[in-house]
Amino acid sequence: MADNYVSIRNLEFLLHEVFEAEKLNRFERFQDYDKEGMNMALTAAKSISDNYLFPIYREMDKDKAYAEKGVVHVHPKLKDALKALADGGWIGAGQDYDDGGQQMPATLESAAQVIFNAANANAASYAFLTNGAANLIQSFASQELKDAYIENMYSGDWQGTMALTEPQAGSSLTDVGASATPTDTEGVYKIKGQKIYISGGDHTAVDNVIHLTLARIDGAPKGTKGISLFIVPKHRPENGELVNNDVITAGIYGKMGQRGYVAAHLMYGENDGTEGYLVGEPHRGLRYMFQMMNEARIGTGLMASGTASAAYYASLQYAQERPQGRHPDNKDPNADPVLIIDHADVRRMLLFQKAVVEGSVSLLLECSRLHDIHVGSTGEEAANAHLILELLTPIAKSYPAERGTDAVSAGMQVLGGAGYTDDFPLEQLYRDIRINSIYEGTTTIHGMDLLGRKVVMNDGKAMKLLMKEVQSVIESAMRHDRLKPRAEQLAGTCAKLGEITMSLFQVAAKEGPRRYLSDATMYLDYFGTTVLAWQWLKQAVTAAAALEAGATGDDKTFYESKLLTNDYFFEYELIKTRAWHKRLQQRDFMTVEMESGLLV
Amino acid sequence: MADNYVSIRNLEFLLHEVFEAEKLNRFERFQDYDKEGMNMALTAAKSISDNYLFPIYREMDKDKAYAEKGVVHVHPKLKDALKALADGGWIGAGQDYDDGGQQMPATLESAAQVIFNAANANAASYAFLTNGAANLIQSFASQELKDAYIENMYSGDWQGTMALTEPQAGSSLTDVGASATPTDTEGVYKIKGQKIYISGGDHTAVDNVIHLTLARIDGAPKGTKGISLFIVPKHRPENGELVNNDVITAGIYGKMGQRGYVAAHLMYGENDGTEGYLVGEPHRGLRYMFQMMNEARIGTGLMASGTASAAYYASLQYAQERPQGRHPDNKDPNADPVLIIDHADVRRMLLFQKAVVEGSVSLLLECSRLHDIHVGSTGEEAANAHLILELLTPIAKSYPAERGTDAVSAGMQVLGGAGYTDDFPLEQLYRDIRINSIYEGTTTIHGMDLLGRKVVMNDGKAMKLLMKEVQSVIESAMRHDRLKPRAEQLAGTCAKLGEITMSLFQVAAKEGPRRYLSDATMYLDYFGTTVLAWQWLKQAVTAAAALEAGATGDDKTFYESKLLTNDYFFEYELIKTRAWHKRLQQRDFMTVEMESGLLV
Repeated sequence: MADNYVSIRNLEFLLHEVFEAEKLNRFERFQDYDKEGMNMALTAAKSISDNYLFPIYREMDKDKAYAEKGVVHVHPKLKDALKALADGGWIGAGQDYDDGGQQMPATLESAAQVIFNAANANAASYAFLTNGAANLIQSFASQELKDAYIENMYSGDWQGTMALTEPQAGSSLTDVGASATPTDTEGVYKIKGQKIYISGGDHTAVDNVIHLTLARIDGAPKGTKGISLFIVPKHRPENGELVNNDVITAGIYGKMGQRGYVAAHLMYGENDGTEGYLVGEPHRGLRYMFQMMNEARIGTGLMASGTASAAYYASLQYAQERPQGRHPDNKDPNADPVLIIDHADVRRMLLFQKAVVEGSVSLLLECSRLHDIHVGSTGEEAANAHLILELLTPIAKSYPAERGTDAVSAGMQVLGGAGYTDDFPLEQLYRDIRINSIYEGTTTIHGMDLLGRKVVMNDGKAMKLLMKEVQSVIESAMRHDRLKPRAEQLAGTCAKLGEITMSLFQVAAKEGPRRYLSDATMYLDYFGTTVLAWQWLKQAVTAAAALEAGATGDDKTFYESKLLTNDYFFEYELIKTRAWHKRLQQRDFMTVEMESGLLV
Repeated sequence: MADNYVSIRNLEFLLHEVFEAEKLNRFERFQDYDKEGMNMALTAAKSISDNYLFPIYREMDKDKAYAEKGVVHVHPKLKDALKALADGGWIGAGQDYDDGGQQMPATLESAAQVIFNAANANAASYAFLTNGAANLIQSFASQELKDAYIENMYSGDWQGTMALTEPQAGSSLTDVGASATPTDTEGVYKIKGQKIYISGGDHTAVDNVIHLTLARIDGAPKGTKGISLFIVPKHRPENGELVNNDVITAGIYGKMGQRGYVAAHLMYGENDGTEGYLVGEPHRGLRYMFQMMNEARIGTGLMASGTASAAYYASLQYAQERPQGRHPDNKDPNADPVLIIDHADVRRMLLFQKAVVEGSVSLLLECSRLHDIHVGSTGEEAANAHLILELLTPIAKSYPAERGTDAVSAGMQVLGGAGYTDDFPLEQLYRDIRINSIYEGTTTIHGMDLLGRKVVMNDGKAMKLLMKEVQSVIESAMRHDRLKPRAEQLAGTCAKLGEITMSLFQVAAKEGPRRYLSDATMYLDYFGTTVLAWQWLKQAVTAAAALEAGATGDDKTFYESKLLTNDYFFEYELIKTRAWHKRLQQRDFMTVEMESGLLV
């Protein structure tokens, strides 16, 4: 097992030097958070991770979750891990002091989540799913419901879930069919239906499970405008007791990875005994759920980034310890072999991982900072931050998932045959990370969200605001000799991306949405890689300034490392936009025009 | 479980229409092989696959191989599968009639291997590893050794292996350290050492295991020129009995995939009781082993292609059956959902898989045909075929492995959440295929082989010969209107590839081999993708001609499908060379110049 899984130095660099998170205390909400307090929180997060999460990462896979006689068993040490996270205040940390929260900035919370996820994304996910569910209740449910549920969720005794997917309704939530029939008591409904792939849906590490469930009130309109949100507990609290609420676990899924993180198949109301409690107003459920979904999208990005971080450090350690082969200019078999970290292609694979991990984390903290500005400020500042966040969300979810999967694969490749065996964590990390391209909307869905919705919303205002941010980084970079060529390169790519976007708008106008969106996944790659280059250049500007200011020792190494990885990103990743640009100029609409019958 | 895993129609198309394999009967060696006989062989292969291989693909993973009390247990039905392959004559099929073989052309054998690998690469690999080991004995061992070993290998009763890797010698065979001490009997040596990751290294489906083992005779020179090849049986045949030969199985590896295909850790001579029998002359072992390694490289390509084929058909079937969502121009929730095969991005993922699978199989049959020409003919024709084969081998191994892994991932993505569960075969295929980028030399090694050795050998003659072949396909394509733009595109890419290659030669001259080879992996991608475009255009020329000749019905669909997939390949895959071209022009040698200490 590798010794290290995350760089705290990098998180501190991003928090304080790049994003100046402590300046969020200009908002009343975050006034108690200074640099020292933030670092203490990271230290606390690392300590929980070292003591409770990392040690059971491999065990939770080996002794995977299983269902027996209707009980879903999880690793016995998971309960302690969830308790440690809850006791540390990490569930509900972002909520108001008055509501039992810590008013923690999301920027800090996300940085901590990188640590938790790198240590053990599977254990951490239980807690952060509960966090998202509790936040949703906090935002939209009645005081009565809050009083009934939130405390036990914050304490880690009750699990929260998001119950959206049904057998016939996966990517298409329009087709959610679970039914909610009003009872004599206002706000109380009888729920019937099936939900599948419900993460954390049932398990022995908690006393109860609270399903934030989408269902359709009898007579509601079809489509997304007829979906309502309900709290559906596994056991309903009645007069201080927990009463069975007829939510049956039909089974759990056998998954390729994340085997310690349960995905359950639930049946509601098989015996007509499932009560659900309406959250907010009828028919507005999907709108509410988008709060949790957007959180979960950032959460997915954090999960992927954390997993890729663990892979990077495990493969780095191996590369630093494993001697093998000699350089191509030294064929002398009497010469000692070199460490594999000295081979060019191993370095490329390590740089790739580092570029993906640190670039992704940077983007995710950028998103969280925008969230904090949205929450902390008012008026145009809040609105603009929210717009940019909306635009970046599909990228912050998909880029870490897609490139993170590639990065872990590169980590496995560094180890060669050893990486394919369970003597090292790479094989589990490889299995685990792959789900992130599917969770919370597949990559395809996010491509369509980006091009079909986010780029065009408010007359393209989000994109204009984003490009202003990028331009400002480019201008800063132009002031550093070493970064000038990179700044010019990014400016060129942004111009090209703008061109392609404009030309796609013409496709939308002339050819309609199907053809407009036919290569949306590639557009997402193009846009996403450009956004990551912006994040890298932003880090590089900070690093260059620190070096010019005379950084020495480990700091000098750290900043030089940032500049090198920035170079790597531009030389090996950003160049891919050249290929995508070419394709996105084509107007054959091959995948729309073709007959499905030609797939033989 | 999916119903289909391979397209026999496609194999017949490649064999007869594209490669005209029946014309190999112009060589005396292959005179008995006509079209009908070849198709019968494919039918027989399909039948064995349907009856013995495909049914246990999932079971061999679920009930994986395990070691207990020194015995390595494999799936009980594996023995029947190996017997069926052996009884069908598939072990040793390429050997002379006089030696118990069938003089089967490799082109046909490889086509059949696609079927076997698609059905169950793990079961098939046992047999084809034995095949390679027996071929090696046949080529280089004494008659006495042949008589002692080959018959029981052809019959499937004894397993053959290749025992190269040691704890300190993986990619670097230079450092092989197993020792061979002469005994009083000529040709008999005492072997001592450890071999790791030995596929098929020990198991209950056979009565004996014959390790083709690399070791160093006492006093031999260091490096590759001091390595000899030995037959080291698990049990040595003595006077009709099998005597324990002191080859101890220390354990088997826990692997991410291919869990039914044993990889063993072997200890030779722990009790000084391991005898090895020298094959051929001393110190020439690595040269001999290259026959098996080159076969195994093509075999790895076939394994990856077969696995990707199974994933393609499993995801295609799902896409044809699963309704979900509506087109972007139809938001009416009352409209029926469409099948996901009608969504543009699902089609892209299916086309990608098809392009990788059928392009890879085409390349592998091209390589096998070159092998047949090399074996069947003489003089310049034989020499030239061999040169092109040598050049293509690193691509035929790596492209199916690398892009096949991506293709299976796309297959999983087509299924969404379902693809991540063991309700479908995708998750196993995803785990299984990943090893192919590591087997038989990692992708890095093949990049260095291509650029460092193959491109420059014989003053670049292989590359010139290959480009002549490509040019001839381009000229044929120019005669078909629909293919003209593709022909021009490929000509352009080849010119660019030539430019880059020449400019890299200057780097070699001026900067030495380390910098020359620093981006060899990317060069492999560039070269490989260009080669695949050649294979696609070649198929497209055949398809276009068949359509012009008036193909109808299913044939018409089949040929149209080829043209569509060819378009896909050029539009979505070949364009990537634009990015690689840009990078390979850069002269920063980032991964050579950097300090390893910057990887933090």
